Amino acid sequence: MTTLVVHGGAGRWAVSEEKRQAVKRALEDAVREGLAAMLRGGAVDGVVAAVEYMEASGLFNAGYGSVYALDGRVYMDAGIMDGKTGRAGAVAAVEGVKSAVRLARAVMELTDHVILAGEGATLLAKRLGLTAPFYKFYSEEKNRQFSQVLEEARQGKWHFKRVLDFADTVGAVALDKDGNLAAATSTGGVWLKLPGRVGDSPLPGAGFWAENGVGAFSATGVGEVIILSTLSLRARDLLEQTGDIRAAVEKAVEYVTRRFGPDTAGLIGVDARGRFAFSYNTRAMARGWGKPGEVRAEL
Amino acid sequence: MTTLVVHGGAGRWAVSEEKRQAVKRALEDAVREGLAAMLRGGAVDGVVAAVEYMEASGLFNAGYGSVYALDGRVYMDAGIMDGKTGRAGAVAAVEGVKSAVRLARAVMELTDHVILAGEGATLLAKRLGLTAPFYKFYSEEKNRQFSQVLEEARQGKWHFKRVLDFADTVGAVALDKDGNLAAATSTGGVWLKLPGRVGDSPLPGAGFWAENGVGAFSATGVGEVIILSTLSLRARDLLEQTGDIRAAVEKAVEYVTRRFGPDTAGLIGVDARGRFAFSYNTRAMARGWGKPGEVRAEL
Repeated sequence: MTTLVVHGGAGRWAVSEEKRQAVKRALEDAVREGLAAMLRGGAVDGVVAAVEYMEASGLFNAGYGSVYALDGRVYMDAGIMDGKTGRAGAVAAVEGVKSAVRLARAVMELTDHVILAGEGATLLAKRLGLTAPFYKFYSEEKNRQFSQVLEEARQGKWHFKRVLDFADTVGAVALDKDGNLAAATSTGGVWLKLPGRVGDSPLPGAGFWAENGVGAFSATGVGEVIILSTLSLRARDLLEQTGDIRAAVEKAVEYVTRRFGPDTAGLIGVDARGRFAFSYNTRAMARGWGKPGEVRAEL
Repeated sequence: MTTLVVHGGAGRWAVSEEKRQAVKRALEDAVREGLAAMLRGGAVDGVVAAVEYMEASGLFNAGYGSVYALDGRVYMDAGIMDGKTGRAGAVAAVEGVKSAVRLARAVMELTDHVILAGEGATLLAKRLGLTAPFYKFYSEEKNRQFSQVLEEARQGKWHFKRVLDFADTVGAVALDKDGNLAAATSTGGVWLKLPGRVGDSPLPGAGFWAENGVGAFSATGVGEVIILSTLSLRARDLLEQTGDIRAAVEKAVEYVTRRFGPDTAGLIGVDARGRFAFSYNTRAMARGWGKPGEVRAEL
């Protein structure tokens, strides 16, 4: 029943066919990386490997592909939860780290804490050798997009919800052969965010949730909306009530749509038997899934 | 039906009689400040005024009374939620601010975001004239306690749960004459925390929750435990199911006790009719409550 599901963000995904194919390949490769890691280890290893692959690809708004804050710098959020232990780890508003999700895992496994933010998180990254040089987070394409959204903002045309015109957030959920569930999420946040802004991705219950015997979830969309909806925990509660992963994920996203309107959220989930589902109220959501020997992606 | 309830933290509260009386007076004064602010404004003004009073008093682990992190510095968390609008604001791991709860309110009212952490939050404080000189956060008494817990940690005798041997976190919930609910929480976190550690206090659903027509809640205790229990949202859901604020608050804390053991959490709540309740699984919880003309505190 080993299953791994990933998302590369809900949004408009108005990209070239070339980019679309590259994204689909990256999603499939992320699933393969995750499944391979699960064969060697467990669900936590699986979601970390899949998310780390997407962070490193530069194709998504996470890791090296992260968007720029208002000050032109790159601050990342990531979170992870181990359904077996019920523990979680997360980092928020962290700069210059190789893999925010690996740092989140270190918070979970090496500290008494759940969330580390800002300089403190960077300090831990330094001690663990998880830092990366700043240049890796900058590209000509992102520089151009930054200039464009900054100009739109100056003209008063920028709207916060337009964050989803661009790609947003990556995540993974997994069930391993021992029945352990895990979830992880990683993001660069939103274009032009205030430095230090924390979205849903590092918050258990909002951006992610994993609980053995129930399910695992990873969210994407407008962070503020997902925080105030506690989207992942909402889906978890619906799953416990209905036993239906599809209904749980769909109803959770419907709640967000009713309260905050469309173009705000997406969610992936897997239950304790390996059944999985996606839902989103945006035009599209990049996603992939697989079991050993069978991998697919859609966008 | 104007009602305001405050807490000054769950914990052991093994303090001198003199300190106990000072704390009770401060709780009563905080309630009076909050009620006065509610007469001029609304529930949000009430919880901010009450929490700000406790932050400024230096008697609690919040504001000027905040404990020190492992690096000997003071990092604060605070959050606020407006039950009328459903919006929330919070700051995490912020240094040198006059009132973390006022800064949290600024995040709610002046930005598109819910949470700002670290340097970014400090930057906003600077722009709003909300900074305070560092010396205000240091006292001989706290210096002595810091040396003591640091020494215990070096000898391997420090246990994370011992955070509640000391005072912990302040919070307020209120219902105003127009039926609006609000909740706020503010804290210095835990002794010897890693720099940048984020507790439950700035997380909607964990450290606080307010929702018109339902209720408002503020939590205290071991932050990591409260995050993983989403304590305030749990009480909110129980209140919606049972209509009984006392049962909701008690059952929510019982859940925490079952899952994480005693000496971990406390909670205050008020419902949409102004009925309120407290619950805690620690030895004591400092608390106060009042309506216009009637103010009380217990410890």
